[in-house]
Amino acid sequence: MTEIEQVTARLRAFAAARDWESFHTPKNLAMALAGEAGELLAEFQWLTPEESASLGEEELGRVRSEMADVATYLIRLADILGVDLIDAIHTKMTEVEIRYPPKA
Amino acid sequence: MTEIEQVTARLRAFAAARDWESFHTPKNLAMALAGEAGELLAEFQWLTPEESASLGEEELGRVRSEMADVATYLIRLADILGVDLIDAIHTKMTEVEIRYPPKA
Amino acid sequence: MTEIEQVTARLRAFAAARDWESFHTPKNLAMALAGEAGELLAEFQWLTPEESASLGEEELGRVRSEMADVATYLIRLADILGVDLIDAIHTKMTEVEIRYPPKA
Amino acid sequence: MTEIEQVTARLRAFAAARDWESFHTPKNLAMALAGEAGELLAEFQWLTPEESASLGEEELGRVRSEMADVATYLIRLADILGVDLIDAIHTKMTEVEIRYPPKA
Repeated sequence: MTEIEQVTARLRAFAAARDWESFHTPKNLAMALAGEAGELLAEFQWLTPEESASLGEEELGRVRSEMADVATYLIRLADILGVDLIDAIHTKMTEVEIRYPPKA
Repeated sequence: MTEIEQVTARLRAFAAARDWESFHTPKNLAMALAGEAGELLAEFQWLTPEESASLGEEELGRVRSEMADVATYLIRLADILGVDLIDAIHTKMTEVEIRYPPKA
Repeated sequence: MTEIEQVTARLRAFAAARDWESFHTPKNLAMALAGEAGELLAEFQWLTPEESASLGEEELGRVRSEMADVATYLIRLADILGVDLIDAIHTKMTEVEIRYPPKA
Repeated sequence: MTEIEQVTARLRAFAAARDWESFHTPKNLAMALAGEAGELLAEFQWLTPEESASLGEEELGRVRSEMADVATYLIRLADILGVDLIDAIHTKMTEVEIRYPPKA
């Protein structure tokens, strides 16, 4: 199993053991993901760009935790929708690499 | 290399080839991630939960593309901050599994 | 009628004339609001704080338009929930003024 | 003074008394607004659309408070950018009313 497959399996078991599967509609998961993205944003909102690049240990711990929340909802949503995230990323990057050609 | 390390390397090369590295502060990347989470949200906003669970092919394609955008900014942010995303996810899941015990 | 009551009335008429009332659940409106907040964010994501404070005319026009979108969903949500927005703001500000005392 | 002008004045005095004006760049305020929109979203994420339309008193109190947060950052941002929010809303609504004609 890949790393992402392992997380996917852990999330499935987590939801099943708590009878939370019915809450995990794509609509609800997209909301939860965006809510966590908002919390991640809040960690940076009053920092200068420079400060955001040199976080203290405690701030970095909070950021890391919010990033984990975003990631878990994203991986769970991918599982529910049958989306292969890594494949979707590479498809998108190929598009973006063409749309924005490198500097000569 | 793991799947995520491969994406990380591709994103690094992409930013370097376009001289975009100076834009990729953690503050800016968190904003870009949240902006993409907002676009993902917009795909679902007028759907019922049931409709969100049975997307047509075209809608699923758009959702997949927005999910890829969220994922790439998240992986790029993790790279810039030196965060191991998979490790952060498992740490967080261990906390959450304890905080919300399974149903008896 | 106050300015906000006038907007509220215009939004009610707009939704009624299009049979969109059933879409305007609080859940959906909160999603739409957050989606528009994401678009507003996107206008600023690659700007320095200084650049964000001296927008050109075209950029300001786009920002103004996104702010209008956020505002209309917020006012529509307030109408649906029976919330007096101005009253809610003053209540909240009184709390925040106490929580963060001014500098001596 | 209109209701919004009164809130604008209170927010100006609040920021000035705390020396917070330098934090209130448009970029930062857009982030704060989106972060609060994420908190508003979180109140609704596991509710059905029907449940979201019949909130209990305590839930409604939290929603009201998050709506106030979104509104204050929006009004503060409008002040900093010199945007007339009510005017922007009516301009946008005129556009939208034409783009989506009413049902016959």
